Amino acid sequence: MSAEHELELRVRYAETDQMGVVYHTNYLVWCEMGRTELIRDLTGVSYAQLEAQGVALAVAELSIRYHGAARYDNRIRVRTSLSDARSRSVTFEYLIVNADTGERLATARTVLVSLDKRGRPVVMPEALRNQLTAKL
Amino acid sequence: MSAEHELELRVRYAETDQMGVVYHTNYLVWCEMGRTELIRDLTGVSYAQLEAQGVALAVAELSIRYHGAARYDNRIRVRTSLSDARSRSVTFEYLIVNADTGERLATARTVLVSLDKRGRPVVMPEALRNQLTAKL
Amino acid sequence: MSAEHELELRVRYAETDQMGVVYHTNYLVWCEMGRTELIRDLTGVSYAQLEAQGVALAVAELSIRYHGAARYDNRIRVRTSLSDARSRSVTFEYLIVNADTGERLATARTVLVSLDKRGRPVVMPEALRNQLTAKL
Amino acid sequence: MSAEHELELRVRYAETDQMGVVYHTNYLVWCEMGRTELIRDLTGVSYAQLEAQGVALAVAELSIRYHGAARYDNRIRVRTSLSDARSRSVTFEYLIVNADTGERLATARTVLVSLDKRGRPVVMPEALRNQLTAKL
Repeated sequence: MSAEHELELRVRYAETDQMGVVYHTNYLVWCEMGRTELIRDLTGVSYAQLEAQGVALAVAELSIRYHGAARYDNRIRVRTSLSDARSRSVTFEYLIVNADTGERLATARTVLVSLDKRGRPVVMPEALRNQLTAKL
Repeated sequence: MSAEHELELRVRYAETDQMGVVYHTNYLVWCEMGRTELIRDLTGVSYAQLEAQGVALAVAELSIRYHGAARYDNRIRVRTSLSDARSRSVTFEYLIVNADTGERLATARTVLVSLDKRGRPVVMPEALRNQLTAKL
Repeated sequence: MSAEHELELRVRYAETDQMGVVYHTNYLVWCEMGRTELIRDLTGVSYAQLEAQGVALAVAELSIRYHGAARYDNRIRVRTSLSDARSRSVTFEYLIVNADTGERLATARTVLVSLDKRGRPVVMPEALRNQLTAKL
Repeated sequence: MSAEHELELRVRYAETDQMGVVYHTNYLVWCEMGRTELIRDLTGVSYAQLEAQGVALAVAELSIRYHGAARYDNRIRVRTSLSDARSRSVTFEYLIVNADTGERLATARTVLVSLDKRGRPVVMPEALRNQLTAKL
């Protein structure tokens, strides 16, 4: 009983850099894939639909620590959890591991704020906030 | 009985641009995912292993036509086929469709050449060429 | 007297892949930078402004041949020229070279079509077409 | 008298997302461009040369706060400063602003660790550390 989602993906060649490992910003793209799926699980609609309804959640702040390196063709697991939800913001946390070895690769945290169509911070629709926090 | 592979993926937010559709070069990243999987199917090893053995296949030439637009969160199907294999090059063809509607989004073709560790064109190892062409 | 633009850029680390060279789709991003600047030169307004006015030019077709490899921190020169303009489409051609050595790295061609706000092909505004073709 | 570098760049279309602004991880790519140039200024050699000599500096930790949005075709200024250098790590800080309006867009911080060719943390070569810290 918790607000959590796990996804698996395979590292793309395009995601590597000349150090032979995944370029560091790509882990953050995987985090976004994770929260897309967690939002779908919690709300029953896709973030694409939320955005079409005028709800935008924009990253306001993020931090990430790298513990190991992901490499081309590795299978990666991203565990996303919702750790906090306020009237204007939600916080997600992420654990990224190598799905084959279990090696911990990165831990991250993002704070997203609710924006209106003009890009100004607004209070999140109450129904949405209730869905997001139902399992907190 | 053919050298063909199908994969499915979901469009990432990071892959969109301000026109509200997938940025045009990202379809080519999906093509690469397709040929990675087709090579795995045909050879029984991953392209990552081939590269570790000193075999590099580099894109020498590509073309793509866009017929429709992929959008965020769409489910996409990429059908990859090997259409030609010569001593120093292999040609792959791709059909990208919306997996839900069946709408054809793009058709592409890439020619890859075999390179040695210094980046010079070389004849492909015969065993590899035989595996690639076994089902042609 | 010609519709041509040259820009220089330096290869970013993020643009490399584990082969130690620029990932092949990134050359196409440089092509887009080139046509952005050529359009600015020819029309006196930015493509950003054109798009705000409801004119979208979307890539419908592209091809590229790779002749050499760009590497991290290389200085790159992109020469963009407009080679054809019709009522609904414009064609750009590109030559990408290493700015220090003069080595030819890639040649490319893109066909862009004029779209309305719903993404349907439309005739390009006549004023825009005249500006684009004034130096052809 | 300080370890600081400023660069300017123009936002690429490829860097935008469907929210109509720059996709959030791309600011971190700009940060890397900034530290590439600051390292060149401080050491007299490029990071490409350092890496060829076996010195790798990998991002171990980063954080970023977004204060405003960068948009397509905006001119962006990235101010990079070196704020700390230890035997095995260096810390860079970044301020990203809209170069035309002066609006503050993001502030970031990255900690990089020195790695050997096998990817293990090592003490940075003393000469390099001295060059990096000469102006601290």
